[in-house]
Amino acid sequence: MTVGTRLLRADDMVALFREVGRDALMDLMIEELRRTFRDHRHEDVEARTRDGFQYTKPDLGLLEWMPTHEIGGPVVVKMVGYHPTNPVQRGLPSVIATSSLWDTTTGELLAIADATLLTAVRTGAASGLATDVLAVDAPVEVGVVGLGAQAVTQLHAISRVREITRVRAHDDAPEAAETFADRIAFLGLDVEIVGTGGLRSLVAESDVLVTCTSVDIGAGPVVPAEPGRPWLHVNAVGADFAGKIELPREMLERATVFPDSRPQCIAEGECQQLAPEAIGPELVEVIKAEADHRRYRDERTVFDSTGWAVEDDVALRLALRLAEQHDLGSSIQIECVPSDPRDPYSFASTPDAAAPRRP
Amino acid sequence: MTVGTRLLRADDMVALFREVGRDALMDLMIEELRRTFRDHRHEDVEARTRDGFQYTKPDLGLLEWMPTHEIGGPVVVKMVGYHPTNPVQRGLPSVIATSSLWDTTTGELLAIADATLLTAVRTGAASGLATDVLAVDAPVEVGVVGLGAQAVTQLHAISRVREITRVRAHDDAPEAAETFADRIAFLGLDVEIVGTGGLRSLVAESDVLVTCTSVDIGAGPVVPAEPGRPWLHVNAVGADFAGKIELPREMLERATVFPDSRPQCIAEGECQQLAPEAIGPELVEVIKAEADHRRYRDERTVFDSTGWAVEDDVALRLALRLAEQHDLGSSIQIECVPSDPRDPYSFASTPDAAAPRRP
Repeated sequence: MTVGTRLLRADDMVALFREVGRDALMDLMIEELRRTFRDHRHEDVEARTRDGFQYTKPDLGLLEWMPTHEIGGPVVVKMVGYHPTNPVQRGLPSVIATSSLWDTTTGELLAIADATLLTAVRTGAASGLATDVLAVDAPVEVGVVGLGAQAVTQLHAISRVREITRVRAHDDAPEAAETFADRIAFLGLDVEIVGTGGLRSLVAESDVLVTCTSVDIGAGPVVPAEPGRPWLHVNAVGADFAGKIELPREMLERATVFPDSRPQCIAEGECQQLAPEAIGPELVEVIKAEADHRRYRDERTVFDSTGWAVEDDVALRLALRLAEQHDLGSSIQIECVPSDPRDPYSFASTPDAAAPRRP
Repeated sequence: MTVGTRLLRADDMVALFREVGRDALMDLMIEELRRTFRDHRHEDVEARTRDGFQYTKPDLGLLEWMPTHEIGGPVVVKMVGYHPTNPVQRGLPSVIATSSLWDTTTGELLAIADATLLTAVRTGAASGLATDVLAVDAPVEVGVVGLGAQAVTQLHAISRVREITRVRAHDDAPEAAETFADRIAFLGLDVEIVGTGGLRSLVAESDVLVTCTSVDIGAGPVVPAEPGRPWLHVNAVGADFAGKIELPREMLERATVFPDSRPQCIAEGECQQLAPEAIGPELVEVIKAEADHRRYRDERTVFDSTGWAVEDDVALRLALRLAEQHDLGSSIQIECVPSDPRDPYSFASTPDAAAPRRP
């Protein structure tokens, strides 16, 4: 039984983060993704390819919806904006998002929550899971290209599944490069910032490489076509527009490429560069096939992460469960439910009809 | 400058309704639609055809999104559920909805509001506008088939654009038929309830006919193939599923059929029954072409109303404007905006970072 809509505001999310703890929240997200992927059956969940409005006025940006429907269960819709000029021009993150949960018995809005923090954490967690399954099973040297908000949660997530012995990092924007060490100080790692001239050795000497840039459409790739170590694992995270790519085609062709969502990665991920038959299995399939993990860890692999709606479903439900455990969030009655379902004006004669229906 | 998200909850909508007044709200909605349609240019507004999840478990229902984007301006997304078993099984309206407004400069959620009441009012208002433009310019006899929530706002809207001299009404469900007169008592009209046997004369003796039923897919039409008066205007409102129709094909073929949204009406409206070349202009085109109105009023016309996303955009913006005028609604900070846009965890060291950003 619901009482209106559960609301997780910004301050609830901050309190949740503090009470659960940063590392525990990341660990929980990785394990929830692992469990959900292991049990996932495509026939049980309708996960729509991201769709929405893309525009160049007033600036380049997009607002998109990412809906999932668990057959016989609820619908989750994440609305996500990507506005790459936000950090420099407005002091806002480039990715801002909100998620909502809907009852398919009645159509009621069950919950609405910030998904800005959740998106950062779940995008990290998806790479953490991919790294755990696909990267070499040993302490790793990590290279990071693109040092915005995503870089923080990417490195955090990797640190939860592998010991990190070295971090080398690059961003074209000095203000991003200069502040990165401070932003990941909580990880207790030394960070070496490299310039454009150091990108080739950054790739060559990484066990795990992360690309999470705001590179312009048509301006990629962001790293040179360097083969790297025979077991190099790459998390390619920054793609979200048709025409936006981060990795050289040669790097993809030398590796097995695992999309998060095959149709979405073909539309806007690194898989744009590959013939369909050259694309490997989806990450969700690999998680199920544990026998294959050992082999992939010793080979070149790429996780093509465009952000799969199922991950947002997992993130929202985890946040709602944790909020309930920690007594966080509030309830509001948004929908104007009349006292007589056949009379939209029936509150007119019964003043309290629009108060929460089920006290 | 925004401060978080404007929120119009159920009690705000009720207060708005009371302060503005029922008739004034309907009149404002009709005039806002008329003005918006008159100024509408398809190249300035991306109005997506409704899309979403349709299901038969746990019951027949759907949850859909109706997005619009004013180029260079905001995005509006209405989420709407249609669950026809709601009134009888759960005491809830079959249509429950929420609308949201988004900033395309930053991606921020500017407003969220109940759209359950607004949907009922705007659906009535669209028929009111169509009736004003397409129905005979004289006092009218009105027939209504389907006496749920929509019937109330349909008749209300028609009463704002024409003098109603007689109402004859039909519903297969006795509990809907028996309560209808009470639900429209505010209109001060006599209502004659007719049984299935009276449907033919109901159609034959109407100047304006409204169909707004929850007829099952494949079970329509809901009225007999009776030609009716040579100037009969029909508002066909109940269609929302592929395969769901209310009018006999013969009635459509004898009339000019005006879709609200041509692609949407072809997918799920009465236009499903027509070849593309047999479909008339969209209502929005007719509103622009005032010279044609006189001719249409003396001819048989059908407004195929599936609910156009632009109408929801108009409804939300009108409600927000009126709420501001009447000092209704509140502001909440849902999105967790970090103090450093490149550090999703930056609230961790600055406790108030997630409080409203722009005081």
